Amino acid sequence: LDISWRSEFPRAEIARRPATLWRYREALPLERPEEGVSLGEVMTPLVPLELPRGRVLLKCDQQLPSGSYKDRGSAVMLSAIREMGIDHILEDSSGNAGASIAAYAARAGVRADIFAPEAASPGKLAQIAAHGANLVRVPGPRSNAAAAALEAASTTYYASHCWNPFFLHGVKTLAFEIVEQLDWQMPREVIVPAGNGALLLGLWLGFDELRLAGVIPRWPRLVAVQAAACAPVYHAWRGESAPEAGATIAEGIAIANPVRLREIRSVVNLTGGRVVTVSEEEIVFALRYLAGNGFFVEPTSAAAPAACLAQGAEAGSVVVLTGHGLKAAAQVAQSIGSNRIEQ
Amino acid sequence: LDISWRSEFPRAEIARRPATLWRYREALPLERPEEGVSLGEVMTPLVPLELPRGRVLLKCDQQLPSGSYKDRGSAVMLSAIREMGIDHILEDSSGNAGASIAAYAARAGVRADIFAPEAASPGKLAQIAAHGANLVRVPGPRSNAAAAALEAASTTYYASHCWNPFFLHGVKTLAFEIVEQLDWQMPREVIVPAGNGALLLGLWLGFDELRLAGVIPRWPRLVAVQAAACAPVYHAWRGESAPEAGATIAEGIAIANPVRLREIRSVVNLTGGRVVTVSEEEIVFALRYLAGNGFFVEPTSAAAPAACLAQGAEAGSVVVLTGHGLKAAAQVAQSIGSNRIEQ
Repeated sequence: LDISWRSEFPRAEIARRPATLWRYREALPLERPEEGVSLGEVMTPLVPLELPRGRVLLKCDQQLPSGSYKDRGSAVMLSAIREMGIDHILEDSSGNAGASIAAYAARAGVRADIFAPEAASPGKLAQIAAHGANLVRVPGPRSNAAAAALEAASTTYYASHCWNPFFLHGVKTLAFEIVEQLDWQMPREVIVPAGNGALLLGLWLGFDELRLAGVIPRWPRLVAVQAAACAPVYHAWRGESAPEAGATIAEGIAIANPVRLREIRSVVNLTGGRVVTVSEEEIVFALRYLAGNGFFVEPTSAAAPAACLAQGAEAGSVVVLTGHGLKAAAQVAQSIGSNRIEQ
Repeated sequence: LDISWRSEFPRAEIARRPATLWRYREALPLERPEEGVSLGEVMTPLVPLELPRGRVLLKCDQQLPSGSYKDRGSAVMLSAIREMGIDHILEDSSGNAGASIAAYAARAGVRADIFAPEAASPGKLAQIAAHGANLVRVPGPRSNAAAAALEAASTTYYASHCWNPFFLHGVKTLAFEIVEQLDWQMPREVIVPAGNGALLLGLWLGFDELRLAGVIPRWPRLVAVQAAACAPVYHAWRGESAPEAGATIAEGIAIANPVRLREIRSVVNLTGGRVVTVSEEEIVFALRYLAGNGFFVEPTSAAAPAACLAQGAEAGSVVVLTGHGLKAAAQVAQSIGSNRIEQ
């Protein structure tokens, strides 16, 4: 499933290019990155946030065009798909990846079938439909959508954000941006929400390429955060069997059977990182804390900050915000309720 | 109401700074721009879009933190407010400005009362509430919210996106970015939706400062687009009396009595621009065209592209996208309906 690519980082040249992920063109596995499928993938901000126990840096990937970090993967994957001359793809997603792939498929002129769980957020489903993708709503848990997609994939190109290597080669640009924004230094720790692990594995790929190119001396610790209610990665990492998965407000990481579980565990251990869980209450508290400080994100994006708030974080740690609050605006407002944070 | 400021544009230095609006610090009327109130105001992308009658450049301001161009104004205005030591503000808004000011007030630690029409989009109202602002929902048309705010402003600082000069001095950075992104050349025409005119007047201010500093030789033509159903600026510009305002899907520009009508008209004429109207059908067609090409914006943002689609646009014209589609996701999906664009 993986592709080999020797990345290079000509820093002076990179600095002169526009502030988008395409500035790392020597690290993208594309024949013609200058013709990439683009909706405007800004270099997302790295913004400090004071927590009671120290300052962290929020990497604001919710500001990408479709409102989630998935756009990194979609932009590179659809570019590769167009280079290969493929004109029809399918994907399964809990929402954000589907919305993102639908947007980039529309931009690329590629037909897309998106299999999504019936219970995905209305905002995400509206995005998929608006972009003209064929939205297939699959009843039952997230895994049903995956199974339906896999069956259909026997005849159509499977542009999966979990399995397609080009997707991860887009997500890896997140690592490049973080390191460049820290003046080409590595952070000591990066904290991310983890479901199927696309974010974690893409980040690791990016840091590993930076390491192989001699830009950074080693990998930063990668910390994967799961909702306690649905934490198969956490339990596997601890070497225990997972209890049956329950419901969580963090729908983007409500993955009972992550397809790349073993790789996620390896990457966490390789980097000296860890897997942690947060309760529903801790996620809601973090959501409120973030909004009370100006950051409007979807519940899934509050999981990583929740871990920092509940368990502390080393100062200077990077926390990735993955999805915009407008993806699930009503749910966010309802969760936060009338308990306003008084400044 | 206006403030005097002599802006400078040290291009080589600007090019070395991070790609945010703060890179134009010599042009911001702040004592300490390096301590500005920031949520990560990326330099928004300028992305080409092919239209049947030529290629335009979309300036994607919906990618700012709260999902609308208003963040430019809010970031600079709240920075000024914090420098002045003010800790309680009020604002009236049809939604986007309120959501933006609520976010930046939260970041700045300033209390905010937001007066919004009861009928504003749920997404926007959710944002305002989530950020802990005091949301005052005013029944009736947009003008009722303005009247209620003005009354309250006798005791609280009026941080109006229409009246506060610091807000316009934030919006003007849109002009700086456009010109820098075109290698410090001016576009010939910039096309924007117009309601109260904050975008148009902010843009003009920016282009005028660039002109005074010798960066560009003159102003580009500014084209203001209104919904035909509510077009007081259009009728005033034509020197005719306006019929009673009706309903429009473009809620962000549904302003029956623009407070700065005379200035809007002057600016349009000064730049050799024009005011045009688009029908509801044309707005929905443009919304569908944009989504079918990967761009998910709210209906108000489709008004300017609608004018280009219906009436043609000079190649290379810049069209400003003002608000994210997730602000009104259900409404967008519903408007576009099942008439998918086949690529």
